[in-house]
Amino acid sequence: MNALEFRQLGSPTPIRWLAAPSSEAWLAQALAHPRDLLVDHAHCERKAAHTALRLMGIYPVEPGLAEALSPLAREELQHFETILTLLKRRGWPLRQLSAPPYGGSLKRCVAPQEPERMLDQFLVAGLIEARSHERLGLLAQHCPDGALASLYHSLLASEARHFAVYRVLAERRFSRMAVNARLQSLAAVEAQILSQLHRQPRMHS
Amino acid sequence: MNALEFRQLGSPTPIRWLAAPSSEAWLAQALAHPRDLLVDHAHCERKAAHTALRLMGIYPVEPGLAEALSPLAREELQHFETILTLLKRRGWPLRQLSAPPYGGSLKRCVAPQEPERMLDQFLVAGLIEARSHERLGLLAQHCPDGALASLYHSLLASEARHFAVYRVLAERRFSRMAVNARLQSLAAVEAQILSQLHRQPRMHS
Repeated sequence: MNALEFRQLGSPTPIRWLAAPSSEAWLAQALAHPRDLLVDHAHCERKAAHTALRLMGIYPVEPGLAEALSPLAREELQHFETILTLLKRRGWPLRQLSAPPYGGSLKRCVAPQEPERMLDQFLVAGLIEARSHERLGLLAQHCPDGALASLYHSLLASEARHFAVYRVLAERRFSRMAVNARLQSLAAVEAQILSQLHRQPRMHS
Repeated sequence: MNALEFRQLGSPTPIRWLAAPSSEAWLAQALAHPRDLLVDHAHCERKAAHTALRLMGIYPVEPGLAEALSPLAREELQHFETILTLLKRRGWPLRQLSAPPYGGSLKRCVAPQEPERMLDQFLVAGLIEARSHERLGLLAQHCPDGALASLYHSLLASEARHFAVYRVLAERRFSRMAVNARLQSLAAVEAQILSQLHRQPRMHS
């Protein structure tokens, strides 16, 4: 695939809040390691559910938060189980993979004090969902393995919805201007982290 | 209700692993505070889901663990959402409640080193489910509020199943003799913690 072809195909449903699209280098790396990508994505779904539960525990009586995040966590777990089934069918073990710097670097951007801390946690969680959505779209479009492409396609719509859930949670508590400004700033950091390809193939390498 | 009546009614499906049944004093306290009990039980369901996710994060590639705990977590969240709906219908806010010493005291029994730590975490989680099952049974049987009694009845079967899930996870990794010995010892502590009624009405007061 040449550069022009990649730009033309792009992400089928781009998330406008991402500051930069994923690189061709990432897609090439991901397509060359389908097994690692699938295992890593299983862990990503589990971690996304855990993030939602963690936020529900930090803010247990925040109006509307549990109602939004509990179904989101269930959906992530449902996806996790779907991936486990496919892994099992292929005899690909769910092995431990070292985490790329992505998640840790984003977490370090979260403000230490409330109420900024809450806003940042919503937006970081949302940006991770947005990036997953974009990358699942690329995999669904370019993965030559039909079953994997179809799995990724089946997962990507909910990642976009999850981004929206976090954005709405943020907008119910903070002004739209504050949300947009902070989202823009965090999105710039997120794109910066991914601008250097991590040597190990991961959903967020 | 007199003592004889309570003993006769007992728990409809007793969990034989509990070292002692709940006291009449707990039941009386619980029935006198239906709103606090329901709010507390919502938090219990959320925390039970969080415990499952936490264990999945600590042991991410332990064979069979995620397959067992992911559906368990989803079910706890489904119950949590069912309770949220009832709370909303009644205009009872999901307010924050101070935790009784129960969970913290049980956590302090968990061995600091593996592999005992894993065993203890499974058994403590299982015992909490077993106690919830027993108490939901008592509430389902004695609660004069029909809608609440029926809700508690609808939840109690899965708590018993969840105890079994944790027990099976333990037995797949440790000898039955080791599991039973440790379960008996932890169950004695669990009953001891509950032998003194906590002043605030809770599922585990």
